[in-house]
Amino acid sequence: MSGNEAQANIGVVGLAVMGSNLARNLASRDGNTVAIFNRSYEKTRGVLDAHPEAGFLPAETYREFADTLAKPRTAIIMVKAGAGTDAVIDELVKVFEPGDIIVDGGNALFTDTIRREKAVRETGINFVGAGISGGEEGALNGPSIMPGGSDESWVTLGPILKSIAAVAEGEPCVTHVGHDGAGHFVKMIHNGIEYADMQLIAEAYDLIRRGTGKSPAEIADIFAEWNRGELESYLIEITAEVLRQVDAATGEPLVDVILDQAGAKGTGAWTVQTALDLGIPVSGIAEAVFARSLSSKPAQRAAAATLPGPSAAWTVDDPDAFVEDVRRALYASKIVAYSQGFDEIVAGAAEYGWSIQKGEIAKIWRGGCIIRAQFLNRITEAYADDPSLVALLTAPYFRDALAASQESWRRVVVAAAQAGIPSPAFSSSLAYYDGLRADRLPAALVQGQRDFFGAHTYKRVDRDGTFHTQWSGDRTEIEAQDTH
Amino acid sequence: MSGNEAQANIGVVGLAVMGSNLARNLASRDGNTVAIFNRSYEKTRGVLDAHPEAGFLPAETYREFADTLAKPRTAIIMVKAGAGTDAVIDELVKVFEPGDIIVDGGNALFTDTIRREKAVRETGINFVGAGISGGEEGALNGPSIMPGGSDESWVTLGPILKSIAAVAEGEPCVTHVGHDGAGHFVKMIHNGIEYADMQLIAEAYDLIRRGTGKSPAEIADIFAEWNRGELESYLIEITAEVLRQVDAATGEPLVDVILDQAGAKGTGAWTVQTALDLGIPVSGIAEAVFARSLSSKPAQRAAAATLPGPSAAWTVDDPDAFVEDVRRALYASKIVAYSQGFDEIVAGAAEYGWSIQKGEIAKIWRGGCIIRAQFLNRITEAYADDPSLVALLTAPYFRDALAASQESWRRVVVAAAQAGIPSPAFSSSLAYYDGLRADRLPAALVQGQRDFFGAHTYKRVDRDGTFHTQWSGDRTEIEAQDTH
Repeated sequence: MSGNEAQANIGVVGLAVMGSNLARNLASRDGNTVAIFNRSYEKTRGVLDAHPEAGFLPAETYREFADTLAKPRTAIIMVKAGAGTDAVIDELVKVFEPGDIIVDGGNALFTDTIRREKAVRETGINFVGAGISGGEEGALNGPSIMPGGSDESWVTLGPILKSIAAVAEGEPCVTHVGHDGAGHFVKMIHNGIEYADMQLIAEAYDLIRRGTGKSPAEIADIFAEWNRGELESYLIEITAEVLRQVDAATGEPLVDVILDQAGAKGTGAWTVQTALDLGIPVSGIAEAVFARSLSSKPAQRAAAATLPGPSAAWTVDDPDAFVEDVRRALYASKIVAYSQGFDEIVAGAAEYGWSIQKGEIAKIWRGGCIIRAQFLNRITEAYADDPSLVALLTAPYFRDALAASQESWRRVVVAAAQAGIPSPAFSSSLAYYDGLRADRLPAALVQGQRDFFGAHTYKRVDRDGTFHTQWSGDRTEIEAQDTH
Repeated sequence: MSGNEAQANIGVVGLAVMGSNLARNLASRDGNTVAIFNRSYEKTRGVLDAHPEAGFLPAETYREFADTLAKPRTAIIMVKAGAGTDAVIDELVKVFEPGDIIVDGGNALFTDTIRREKAVRETGINFVGAGISGGEEGALNGPSIMPGGSDESWVTLGPILKSIAAVAEGEPCVTHVGHDGAGHFVKMIHNGIEYADMQLIAEAYDLIRRGTGKSPAEIADIFAEWNRGELESYLIEITAEVLRQVDAATGEPLVDVILDQAGAKGTGAWTVQTALDLGIPVSGIAEAVFARSLSSKPAQRAAAATLPGPSAAWTVDDPDAFVEDVRRALYASKIVAYSQGFDEIVAGAAEYGWSIQKGEIAKIWRGGCIIRAQFLNRITEAYADDPSLVALLTAPYFRDALAASQESWRRVVVAAAQAGIPSPAFSSSLAYYDGLRADRLPAALVQGQRDFFGAHTYKRVDRDGTFHTQWSGDRTEIEAQDTH
């Protein structure tokens, strides 16, 4: 025993960069005393020595860690998502007591969180899956935090998390999202939207560069300018920084030196896979995930490099007008991506029985996280004005923004197709927009085909019931049981 | 006991339409004697009475069913995929012996088939997941069959399945796809491609109708004409039939009377979800799945109906030229969909250790199944010419076809964007094509962003290693461990 008995109000398990930064963030706030534990004590020792100002209370064993924490014991696990999380939970459950709180701050799949919460609940201990966004810097200076779990856990945990969260317009970027896996679910959607946002920015950059011949530094200026308008956001801001960066070794723009194969860590794919289970079209996010996987197929790209493009040369007559068209296309496509993401939140909440305040989610994304943006205030307002809004893009503010942007958006999609510049997220978002507003869709033909080859039946526009045409018989229509 | 001891060489469990049709197909072939069993004997009795010519041997219990079958006993389960399949397997395992063969002919998820094969193998009994395509009519007259399972099972099962499969150019549409879940995996991809094919046809129809004002009957003639060229396929053929159909009640084209909300049974979504696990961009299939789910959101569509479209009226100057452009766009997009589908087969085979002959898969899809088409011979030839082909669309035949189509394809995507007609599959396929052939992709910018906010590192075009720019420090570059 180290004489630290029950002095800490919060503990952190796992002291890699995210964990130690979060522990330092906690320690820097008035009222917090932080216990720290790592599987290897050497790392605990290192964090302790490097940050004497933090007043960390180190523990060598899980037992000692538990003894160091005041009740209800509250510990945040910051280890790599997966089997390691289960191993730490198993150890904590042995030394914690009913009423204590175990928080998983990793990037867990929400269905794992639901499973873990259910298992840990049996012991009387609270288990909270909390999405934490903002990367290493956010963990240190203020992340956006999306906790799920029980109402009981929130009583203790709320004030602690509020003390370390980012602050946006005076409000801490944390809210009790909903029960069990709701926090990790919403964090997953955050990441899915982030994929779409990044891909849209990448397409905007590519179109401007290939359309106008402007240099990365010049395009950095454009993004910096955009960051003063309705597109103001962290991702637009850092895009300007990345584009302005010059590679010291070659003197070239860094973006031209970076290998153009994008990596991914799975949360974008999860967002799309979950959307498919929920029946929600998240085409913008899907195209963003696919664009990354396509980029990372060097053998296929090499074989396809000689496939022909447009024969006519593509020229932009008015570069300023084109840049403005691209800006509007980006804004419109971004509205679609967020609208799709919030559709998935609504569907997930219905499926899993979570009471999620959509406007609150937009609020806690205003600071600390990767997709932080002014824009999110408009989403909060939209749901405040109409809590039963069926689609974000139909809210008056977004409707007006889309109306003001859609002609530009069309010109950009047209230019990309004519020029042979891949713009999957721009064009997919526009197709979604045109699909949703269409009076009639050729889905009717699809239903006819399905009835023809599989007797899947169809409904009619003019009366209730389910029908089947006897295609291989006399082709009369019969009323059918709706079993297919 | 009914005196049927050990006379049947094949049995069918589950006598709904698919099962009874498959049993009748089996019974109609020389050399087959078919035992039948259904949970409710009333249904067995009904099938027996309705088809005296089949010479079915009915069984009232699983024990009697097993006694009716010659060894190695071989039974095909035709029940709704899911828990019912497991229940039937449990019963059959009790009455079958080592060396016997249980075939699941339902639409099982391939990972369920892998699980079941592993469990049943413990008993010494062979378990075969077999995808069967062609719907009710295919089951009766000759489906395309995609069996997985052991080599041992194929010795007995092969001749039986060959006896009932569709025949294309003299060859039965069945091959031993690979071990355990390989058959259901390939059937899943078949269905995914089917989704894309149907969506592309629907977009072609919609564009022609809205662009030229032609009636469904006139467009039926166009599809019938297309069915005599390189697009020749079952889906094009039945599209003409559906478009020509007149609703008796109203005198309107049936396609105008069918509610435009497309249903789905999940295999398209599975294809996309699996592709996301495998890192394969199947954007055409994903857009098709999303188009169906979008169509089935009436509340959102109603709210979005007043979102503005293009202000300029859209006119097609030369209808014949436009129709030809759409035909070529359809063909090019179809090549992309198949290329993506075969990419997923290759990735799945690598992941699960299956030895799948890609050319053979294309061959067995030429008859019996929903995506049957002349076109599939070109795929077989492409893999015969180059078994290590990295992407179908880079094979010489398809390269030429794409080169001949791409200008038309671009004009169609441009027209759709200008006219405000949703064409997600056409535009997504073109974006994929342009992405794969791009010399540089803005994925480099995405990597720069990821390195900025998450220290995810990047690779360089000019030397090996993994690098990180110290964005929040002095912005020099360091060589990093590739751990992010």
